[in-house]
Amino acid sequence: MAVYTEVSDTALAGFLADYDLGQLLAYKGIAEGVENSNFLLHVAAGFFILTLYEKRVRASDLPFFLGLMEHLSARGLVCPQPVKTQQGALLGTLAGKPAAIVTFLEGVSTRMPTVAHCAALGAALGQLHLAGADFPHERPNDLSISAWPALFAQAQDRADSVEPGLADFLATELSALVALWPQGLPRGIIHADLFPDNVLFLGDDVSGLIDFYFACTDFLAYDLAICLNAWCFEADFSFNITKGKALIDAYQSSRPLTGDEAAALPVLARGAAMRFSLTRLVDWLNVPPGALVRPKDPREYVRRVRFHQQTTGAQDLGLTR
Amino acid sequence: MAVYTEVSDTALAGFLADYDLGQLLAYKGIAEGVENSNFLLHVAAGFFILTLYEKRVRASDLPFFLGLMEHLSARGLVCPQPVKTQQGALLGTLAGKPAAIVTFLEGVSTRMPTVAHCAALGAALGQLHLAGADFPHERPNDLSISAWPALFAQAQDRADSVEPGLADFLATELSALVALWPQGLPRGIIHADLFPDNVLFLGDDVSGLIDFYFACTDFLAYDLAICLNAWCFEADFSFNITKGKALIDAYQSSRPLTGDEAAALPVLARGAAMRFSLTRLVDWLNVPPGALVRPKDPREYVRRVRFHQQTTGAQDLGLTR
Repeated sequence: MAVYTEVSDTALAGFLADYDLGQLLAYKGIAEGVENSNFLLHVAAGFFILTLYEKRVRASDLPFFLGLMEHLSARGLVCPQPVKTQQGALLGTLAGKPAAIVTFLEGVSTRMPTVAHCAALGAALGQLHLAGADFPHERPNDLSISAWPALFAQAQDRADSVEPGLADFLATELSALVALWPQGLPRGIIHADLFPDNVLFLGDDVSGLIDFYFACTDFLAYDLAICLNAWCFEADFSFNITKGKALIDAYQSSRPLTGDEAAALPVLARGAAMRFSLTRLVDWLNVPPGALVRPKDPREYVRRVRFHQQTTGAQDLGLTR
Repeated sequence: MAVYTEVSDTALAGFLADYDLGQLLAYKGIAEGVENSNFLLHVAAGFFILTLYEKRVRASDLPFFLGLMEHLSARGLVCPQPVKTQQGALLGTLAGKPAAIVTFLEGVSTRMPTVAHCAALGAALGQLHLAGADFPHERPNDLSISAWPALFAQAQDRADSVEPGLADFLATELSALVALWPQGLPRGIIHADLFPDNVLFLGDDVSGLIDFYFACTDFLAYDLAICLNAWCFEADFSFNITKGKALIDAYQSSRPLTGDEAAALPVLARGAAMRFSLTRLVDWLNVPPGALVRPKDPREYVRRVRFHQQTTGAQDLGLTR
């Protein structure tokens, strides 16, 4: 992660003239985020984050993402709150890129989530789903099951270079998931990428959720499944059911799962593991020369798929009620 | 510029336990500095910069650099002030690297210095030299004239790939500078890299000098010469004598040049241009695969050498008194 676009002091001062944030006191490029350029901005009004959206984020999706953050903030969820220009716009242009300013949040992401972190995350996820319920816009999940065959096709020829037999494994799994995938579960706004990187804590309390640039409309329980994968496996790829139970229980304290959702949780978790196996595999096989970002190892998620193939029900993930 | 070493929240919390800075509230890797890893640190006591020193900075030099920043801060110069541990240490270890915390300064560096910026910089440079006068430690300038033959030797074979005839030009210039280089000028602490990147402004006023990791003991007027090259040439490589005069006049308002220094200024400026031509050339020819830093074009400084070869005295640089 790095700064892809340089911003001169004069260009920034011109951009800030549209905002009521007072004098520019300092700015620093920060190494953070899905392939965007981010700057910490210190102005008379305080500290903010300035984001320049690079090509991986579709410009046409930005009003959805920024509108969602504004909506969630207004409902009390702590997430970056977009700052409006004097004309009321959430989005501007800086150094030729779409650009927005959001509030700077306190908190530190954790690399080694504890049971307490998992519980706090579960409650925050439930609150996110409730707060998003009346958001009036939709965005299809372009990385859901319908997108996986195309992702697999990009990686199929070279998948075995990552792990012998991986191409066959993924082909078989893809067919299985298409047959098993649930229908008609409650849908709504999901974060879709709520990994530990994207959750800020002060002590054991969640102080903010960040990076909404994969947010979309999909099964709510699929978001919970993504979190079970991202938060409850140990470094040796064993599933920690104590963490799973803490996460699910806390989620249900905000938003109880329906019976259908509870029943579907294992296949959703298996599918969520497949989604990240595939996107990581494609990234792994397509590192551009001179890349600033080191891709994540897809095998970490293939291991999760294998785990989920062997569970016998949601109780194996920690669901107890 | 990028973050080379990752720092986990738990490692950072352990490191901070030695300081009286209060709870860790946030930290972000920032894209800044000579090849070190820098983080913006938000703690209960405020905002700070955490630096992990990577291999390009010699660990044995760190006490000099940090001690100098502390010395200069104590004399009222606005520069990063190292924060001491409870045991009084300026330097610790984090993620296996030497690490220090310094104060966060307000201000924005300018890409297009105006005459007013040059005047403010000149005054600040003079103040830096006065404030450094009683610093009790020395560090030889390992990029001064005695180091240039070895730098040239590293680049000689491939110099013509950058610009036809460059190897011969540099060889001739090196001999000329050895013959012309002055002796016995006033020596002291110099910043040695006071480019616009390393000077923070609020409006037209200098709000801080940063990045002291080339600071050393050398001719004071050589530092002024470095600044004339870095601040007073326009994008078309023409020397702006109005900026030169503003810089020199303001410097002399803090610290008047001796007659010998004034007479030596043209050759010092020519040598300073040679120093950056050579280091940039070596970097340009030795970009490692996958480098995170794009090297600067050495030809920008070769053009400056050519300018200085043709001046007839310090009046051509703007010296009027």
